[in-house]
Formats: sequence, structure tokens, C-alpha cells
Amino acid sequence: MYELGANRYGKSRIRLVTVTREAERHVLRDLTVDVALEGDFTAAHVDGDNTNLVATDTMKNTVYAFARDRLTGAPEAFGLELARHFAAGPQVGRASITLREHGWDRVALAGGPAPDAFARRGDLTRVAVVAATKSGATVEAGIEDLTVMKTTKSAFSGFERDRYTTLAETDDRLMATKVTALWGYGETAAEPGFDFDAAWETARSTLLAVFGEHFSPSVQTSIWIMATAMLDASPAIDWVRMVLPNLHHWTVNLEPFGLDNPGKVFVSTTEPHGLIDATVRRTG
Amino acid sequence: MYELGANRYGKSRIRLVTVTREAERHVLRDLTVDVALEGDFTAAHVDGDNTNLVATDTMKNTVYAFARDRLTGAPEAFGLELARHFAAGPQVGRASITLREHGWDRVALAGGPAPDAFARRGDLTRVAVVAATKSGATVEAGIEDLTVMKTTKSAFSGFERDRYTTLAETDDRLMATKVTALWGYGETAAEPGFDFDAAWETARSTLLAVFGEHFSPSVQTSIWIMATAMLDASPAIDWVRMVLPNLHHWTVNLEPFGLDNPGKVFVSTTEPHGLIDATVRRTG
Amino acid sequence: MYELGANRYGKSRIRLVTVTREAERHVLRDLTVDVALEGDFTAAHVDGDNTNLVATDTMKNTVYAFARDRLTGAPEAFGLELARHFAAGPQVGRASITLREHGWDRVALAGGPAPDAFARRGDLTRVAVVAATKSGATVEAGIEDLTVMKTTKSAFSGFERDRYTTLAETDDRLMATKVTALWGYGETAAEPGFDFDAAWETARSTLLAVFGEHFSPSVQTSIWIMATAMLDASPAIDWVRMVLPNLHHWTVNLEPFGLDNPGKVFVSTTEPHGLIDATVRRTG
Amino acid sequence: MYELGANRYGKSRIRLVTVTREAERHVLRDLTVDVALEGDFTAAHVDGDNTNLVATDTMKNTVYAFARDRLTGAPEAFGLELARHFAAGPQVGRASITLREHGWDRVALAGGPAPDAFARRGDLTRVAVVAATKSGATVEAGIEDLTVMKTTKSAFSGFERDRYTTLAETDDRLMATKVTALWGYGETAAEPGFDFDAAWETARSTLLAVFGEHFSPSVQTSIWIMATAMLDASPAIDWVRMVLPNLHHWTVNLEPFGLDNPGKVFVSTTEPHGLIDATVRRTG
Repeated sequence: MYELGANRYGKSRIRLVTVTREAERHVLRDLTVDVALEGDFTAAHVDGDNTNLVATDTMKNTVYAFARDRLTGAPEAFGLELARHFAAGPQVGRASITLREHGWDRVALAGGPAPDAFARRGDLTRVAVVAATKSGATVEAGIEDLTVMKTTKSAFSGFERDRYTTLAETDDRLMATKVTALWGYGETAAEPGFDFDAAWETARSTLLAVFGEHFSPSVQTSIWIMATAMLDASPAIDWVRMVLPNLHHWTVNLEPFGLDNPGKVFVSTTEPHGLIDATVRRTG
Repeated sequence: MYELGANRYGKSRIRLVTVTREAERHVLRDLTVDVALEGDFTAAHVDGDNTNLVATDTMKNTVYAFARDRLTGAPEAFGLELARHFAAGPQVGRASITLREHGWDRVALAGGPAPDAFARRGDLTRVAVVAATKSGATVEAGIEDLTVMKTTKSAFSGFERDRYTTLAETDDRLMATKVTALWGYGETAAEPGFDFDAAWETARSTLLAVFGEHFSPSVQTSIWIMATAMLDASPAIDWVRMVLPNLHHWTVNLEPFGLDNPGKVFVSTTEPHGLIDATVRRTG
Repeated sequence: MYELGANRYGKSRIRLVTVTREAERHVLRDLTVDVALEGDFTAAHVDGDNTNLVATDTMKNTVYAFARDRLTGAPEAFGLELARHFAAGPQVGRASITLREHGWDRVALAGGPAPDAFARRGDLTRVAVVAATKSGATVEAGIEDLTVMKTTKSAFSGFERDRYTTLAETDDRLMATKVTALWGYGETAAEPGFDFDAAWETARSTLLAVFGEHFSPSVQTSIWIMATAMLDASPAIDWVRMVLPNLHHWTVNLEPFGLDNPGKVFVSTTEPHGLIDATVRRTG
Repeated sequence: MYELGANRYGKSRIRLVTVTREAERHVLRDLTVDVALEGDFTAAHVDGDNTNLVATDTMKNTVYAFARDRLTGAPEAFGLELARHFAAGPQVGRASITLREHGWDRVALAGGPAPDAFARRGDLTRVAVVAATKSGATVEAGIEDLTVMKTTKSAFSGFERDRYTTLAETDDRLMATKVTALWGYGETAAEPGFDFDAAWETARSTLLAVFGEHFSPSVQTSIWIMATAMLDASPAIDWVRMVLPNLHHWTVNLEPFGLDNPGKVFVSTTEPHGLIDATVRRTG
């Protein structure tokens, strides 16, 4: 009469910090890791039979144990090791690892960057989403928590007007957003030797540079322009998805105070916000 | 060379409060509304042509204007009016309205409940997700932000053990979670006359009662048991999805202080947490 | 050349859950506890000498150990035990314990309230702030996270107008706030036998009833009216402090859509907000 | 029978963005401003008489109007203008302005830093707290939201041990904190010509460099060492207050997995946390 539909389970928000104590300096890594498994877990749901259920506590332990020696490169590479480990479980169809890496800068000392003291950057979060099955793996990478603003070269006009439309057309507005971007690498990325750090850095710097350079007739077009530039810059990327809130900045009416406001003073808002979500991919 | 993939856009976090000033008392409604449209918006993305783009500001205006006279019943009914309005747009394939209703209680006065003063409940958020196309509509309802705990009748044992497993088996633990539940109504729900409030209340009270009554061998089984009970209770519901974090409560080791701890003192944690996500549906 | 000024240290956000397993039913308590010590800690700051420093980890342990048998009544009473324990330390001048208690309701079953299943209320947080020195103790109690709204009987007019004033006077507006209230009990409250639960409940219900009943010419006056009513109702209370944000609700202009808006549709906002902070005390 | 005690009111979270459109590039400022007034507001509280009450909406308008031409330098200078304006009000005894400035970097383009595109830094928030009375002004500055970590040169040993102490002594631990620092300038800072930006930058860089360089026997001593270095570096600073959570990082026990853990793998936690609050000032 009833059946189990889509299901997944795992451990979320595993907070992992590692310190590699090199001779000259320490290397600090700071990640939040989520593990999720899909597979044939009908018995656990329907029969209360936990036989083939990996405890989420075990997932957490595995992440910390693997971090001892295998978190030596990109978060994507660490995610691949974890995903393949979990995907080998008898009941597991697909293991997904989401890794968010939080950046830290070395503190500036008189003699140069500190070897063992760090300040958290806070400018963005690097994301990796790795999934493995028994026969293969996929790797996605991305950016979260990157807040950007253009103070010109952004317009919004020519849109549909109906009886509920009051928004004025504008050829010059502030455009601000908090970028969530995710992109998918082709199959070769899951093979040894792919340089995830370089690929991520190219994607990040391209996204930012194009954000700064382009003229934006709408957030939708901005996604297209930034995403196609990222695809141009990185043949390894198959698709780019962006989810961009439009964080409206309203020009303050200063006329009651005898002042004009030529694009000078704005109210920054977060609620409500536009929300534009689009994927751009290679054709065919 | 590139093409537009999945895309949607809209306005999020439209904060709407309405007061209906009846003779004897005021009725207060408090909702957060998100509007999202899907359709053929290729020109807006690829060509910077906004001709058929409904401004998200217009969406916000529409929600407030519709609230003037049409927010008289369930949030699902209000969502259907909005969804059908937006779905009629030339470029729109599908309009989705997500409504979160925040509950308020009347303040207790000496003479009974206040006619015009309210306190926000905070025990849960009622959710409705309504989508309309040019040919039909679907209605989903749900619950968010409902934190519940069982202080017994929860076990976890018999799970897989590998070299990374340290968790002890237990036949009696605290089980705490913050419920996110969503369920889908069949087609008849989108027709006039369906009582969304009664259906939601049945689902809510069934979920809670079964949460309290059942013996839980795992969070997975709890979802199955609660969801099948909700399907039993409401023929109008086709499927139930639950996303349940396992908010671990660890028994404190009081032995160093010469005390035992027979299930008395716990550390409440939120990070890391298990996360169990499953859908249960009618067969066939 | 330099000296240590005001200082305090302690452990914050100790998350404590206790379950008392009575024959017929379980009793659930859920608190967040902060411990802070003041005293002569100059050596620890200036000389790096930790000799008389109680580790904050020890504070945490003490809270959990004390909770084993002594969290049997009001949070204020538990706080007094903790405060007096820490105040006895050789270096300690004053120990302050802040306790926030989170309410849970029993889940409704067919046969009545569940004996062992609970749902978190979320309507407010009960606060107690207890401080002990070697010679005495003070007890304060309060409320946080209580969001309330009046849909009429709130005005704001006759205020000062200068060249930067644009706000219209109004004799009927929504008034919404998230109450933070703290009140101080007289010395007798620290003696055995004082009924903290009854005193807190009287204060809470008085605050809410008066909030609902009174006419508010300003948030400032509302504080005065509510606070004096609380002082009237409880001779044990010496003073009441309230910190009330004015969570503005703006009437939506529906005229562009051919609709009037007679106090019906509002935008709920949180930013910016007024913030009114005042203490009312017994004279002399 | 009752009287009004301490009171203040104002507008909080005024979100202000300004763009100065210079010939070659735009300059972006992003602040959150709080205004608070103290004075003789008894009539407003006790009598419901708003005659001398400045509406908080007027405060907001004033901030935006002043930002049109007067936000040309340090936040402290802007705060002084606002504070003196409000302090001139007939009923006002003291006007306090708290300004939090959010940093933005120019986006990197191929040809150099973008003239009109920015990314929010997120590494810290610059704070200024300015207060004016009818006869003078005080200026405080500070830092919030700065998360830092030392991966060595931090110990904690020799502390008091009682029956509730289980913490092991350590001569090498991670020390992580989220800095809240505030410091007070002497009277000359409120006079024209004081370079607030340079003073803040000296304080920030000194705090960070000393954080990285010093050996920490406790968070308390770290505050003393950092604060005295800041006082050494800036004669204009009279006192420094720091509020530092101790964000514990626990060494993971990897022995069950056959691995040692020589200071390599840690669990990052935020709850519970130590909280150390101390002020260091010039003697006399």
C-alpha cells in the first residue's frame, strides 16, 4: 500500500580543522563536511532492520580518520577518497560528500607572514560536491557567501508592465548579490592528476573579473555572461549554475531635506530580494 | 556552443501581515511569501531582452494587492490564486508560490482572549507550496521549525560495524529532531472546496501523536511510521517527505565526580548532526 | 604604567538537558547556562599565573554535576546553588550565573498529554540572572524572545519636528516588538522559600495582559505602563527594565492598483528598528 | 511611588551605503549605524507626552541626509557630526552613535583593480562608538568579527583543580577566538585633525601581530599582552577592552582507528565556549 521513495541519510556539519606542522610553518585547513548515502535502505525504513546501516557517527569518525593523512590537497580530492570509501559499502548506491572550505590568511608580522597564526578570511566559502557510485564519480565545485556589488554598468528596463507594475525603468542602478555558484566538471576530473585548485581559482577569478567588467541589463543576463565566460576559460567545466539574490539598494529620497541624491546615498536591504537561479551548459 | 538549462526566478521573503478588523475582534495573519517563475526566459538570459520578464518588484506588489481581499482562508488557497495569476503570463510555464505562515496566539486578558493583541507562537511554521501551469495546479503542505524530543522509546542498535565504528549500541536514548515535513495532495486538492486547514491540522496532529507513541529503532523507521500514519489519516495525501536532523544528546560522564548518570543529564548538541531524508508514498 | 581594569571570565552556552524519570511521566528541562566570575585575577592577566584560576571547563563540569540532583525547582534556585559554589572560590569576588530556560510542551496523544514526548514551545525564553558574593546574593529574572503585536490602541503623535522629520503623526498604528524584560527581586528572594516560579508567572502574565489592554502613545509610555503594573502585581520586584525594538509595520500603498488600504495590508520589517530601553523602579 | 531609572532610545541597524563617483573610480562605503539618545525623557515615559521626543524615524533620515556630504572620512568623524547634531536637542543629555563599517575590496580585473565593482571582505567589522554631550565628546573605536587562531605557542596549565576539574594541563594547544575589541581615545581625539584611520590601523595591525608573536599561557594573559602593546603603540589610546570567546578545538582521539594524532586533527566547536572579558588601562 505504501512504498519508500527517494531517500538519503548521513552526517552533516562535521567541523574539521587540521594543522600540518612543517619545519618552517604550519598549514591550517578548516572544513565543514557533510556525508550522505543513497542506496537500498528499505529494510532500515520499513522493517527497523539496521543491519546494513552505516551509523552517521561512523561517517564522522571516518572523516576525521581520513583527515589524518589524506587531506593533503584540494577538498575535491579528499572528497573523492571519502566518497569512494563509502560507495564501497554493500548497501550503498551513491555516496555524496559536500565540503565547504573556510579560508584563513597568515597574520602579518614585522618579519613577514606568521608561520603559526591565522585570521579567517570571510570573503567566500569554497565548495566541493563529490559523488561516487560503484562505477564512477562526479565532481562539482563552487563558491558560496561571496557578496559583490557593481556601482554602475547595471540597468533594468524594457520589462513587462501590467497593472501591478510600479517599478521605474533605470539605466543605472547598484547591483549587489551574494553569489552561490556551482559548476560540474567532466569525467576526466575524477581521474588522478586533475588540478582542482587551479580549476577552482580560474573559475573564481573569471567570475569576479567578468562581474566587474560586463554591462548588466538584468541579473539573468549577468548569469549568462559570467557562466559562459567560466565555460570559455575552463574546458573541464560542463555546466555552471548560479543562484543570485538581488540585494536591492534603494536610492534615498533626500528632497524633503533640500538635497538631491545623484546616485550617492542608498538603503541596503536584504528582504525581500529577487532570486535568480539559472544553469548554463555546453550544448549537446 | 552554450545553452540555457534549468532556470527560475522570482521574489523571495515578501513579508506580509494582514489585519482584518471584525466587529468583535481583529484577525491577524503573518506570512512570508516566495514567488518563482519558470518558463521560456531564454531571451532575457541570452539576449538581455527583458520584454517578457515580470519584474520581481511586480511580483511583490501583486502579493500585497491580492492580500487586500483574497487572503481569507488557508495559505494554500491564497497561493493558488497567486500561482494561477502568474501562470497566465505569456512566457510562464510554471509559477510556484511558497508560503510560510507564522502563528500568533491571542494574549490572555482577565476577561478572555484579547481582541487585538497577539503573541507569536514560535512552535512551528506552516508551509504551503503551490504550483500552477496553464493546465493545472499542484498543492503541497508542510511543517518547518518544529523541534520535538522523545525521552525514551528510542533505540539504535544492530547497525553495521566497521573499523571506524565506535558508537555503542543503545536500547534507550533521547531522540530529538527539528522536523521539516512536506506532503503532496492529490489533484482534487486544487479544486474548490478542499479544506486545507483541516487537512493540515490532521497531518500535524497525526505526526505529533505518532512521534510520541511509537517505538523508534532508528530515525529512518520513525519517518516511515509517522509518514504512513499520515497517509492512513488523510486519503488526500499522496506522499510525505521528511527531513529530520538527529540532534544528538550525549549522556554526560559524571563518574569523575562520584556520580552515576542514569539517563538524567545530557549535553544538547546541534553540530554535527545526523540528517535523514526520506519520502514515503502510496504504491502505484 | 598600565593596570587591569574591569574583568570577568567564564563559560558561556553550556547546553544542559535533564530528564527526570518519574513513575508516571518524564519531566524535561532544557537550559542554556553561562557562568562568569569576577574577582582578583590580576596575576592571571599580568603574570600569566593561573594558580587561582578556575578553568572554564571546570565550570562546565560543575554545572552538569550539580544538575544531577539540584535542578529540581526554578532556574533561579539552581542558579543560586551554582553562584554560591563559585563565589566560595578564594579569588572570586562575585559569581554570576545566567540561565535561559527553553520551554517544552507535552505532545498531545489520543489519551492525553504524552508522558515522554515533547515539542519545543518557542514562544519565549525564561531568563534568570543570579549573582553571589561572599556575603550575599541577588536574583534577577526576565523574558527574552517574546514577540508581541497590538493591532490597534497604539498611536504616535505630537513628537518633535525638525528639518529632518518626515514621519506623519498617527492615532492608530500596529505596534510590534520582541520583548526583552529583566526585573530585580529584593533581598528576600535569595532566602529559602521564595517562589520564583510564581513570581515569574505573575510578571509574565501581567506584562502580557497590560500589553494587550493599554493604549500606547509611544513605546516609552508602554514600558512605563507595563513595568509599573508588574511592580504593582509583585511587591518582591524592585525594578523592571525593558528593551523593546519597535518592529515597524508599514502600511502598503495600494492606490496604484486601484485599492484602498484601511489598515489591512502591512509590510513587516526588522531593519532598521527603533530601540527603546528604560528601567522603572520603586522610588527611594 | 515609582520613578524612571536609566533610559535611552534610538534607531538601530540603519543600513547606509554611499557611492562617491570620482572621475577615475567609485568609492564605496557600507555602514550600519545605531543612534541612541539619553536625557530628560520623563514626560514621554510617564505622561505620554511626546513633545520633546525626536522620532527614531527622524534619526534615520538625519543619518541619510548627513551621509550626502559629510561621510568623507573616518566613521568616527561622521559619528562626531551626528552625535553633536543630536546632542544639541533641547531634551538630550547625551547622544551616542555606533557605526559598524563593512569593508569591500575592489574586484581584480585584467588591467588592475576595478573602478566600480567590489567584493565584501568579511574578515572583520570596524567599529566606532562616538558620544557627545552639550559640553564635549568621547570617541571609542574597535574591531568585531575578527576570527583568529594560533596553532602553537598557546598553553594552559597550573590552574586551580577541584573535585570538578577534569581538564588536562597542556603546554601546546590551538587557541582560537573571535575578537571583539574596543578602545577609548583621549580627549584630543575629538578635536579636529585627529587621524582616526591611522589610529585604527595601528591598533588593528598591532593587535594582530602581537596575537601571532606572543606565547599565551591563558586567554587572560593574551588580552593583557595585546592590549598593552596597543597602548604602547598609540599614545592616543587610554584603555583597551577585549571580549574573547575561547573557541575550543578538541584533539580527535584516533587510537580506535590505529592512528596517533600528534596535533594534527581537531574538532572545531563554538558551544560551549570560554568567554574572557578584560579592560587594560593606563595607570592613574
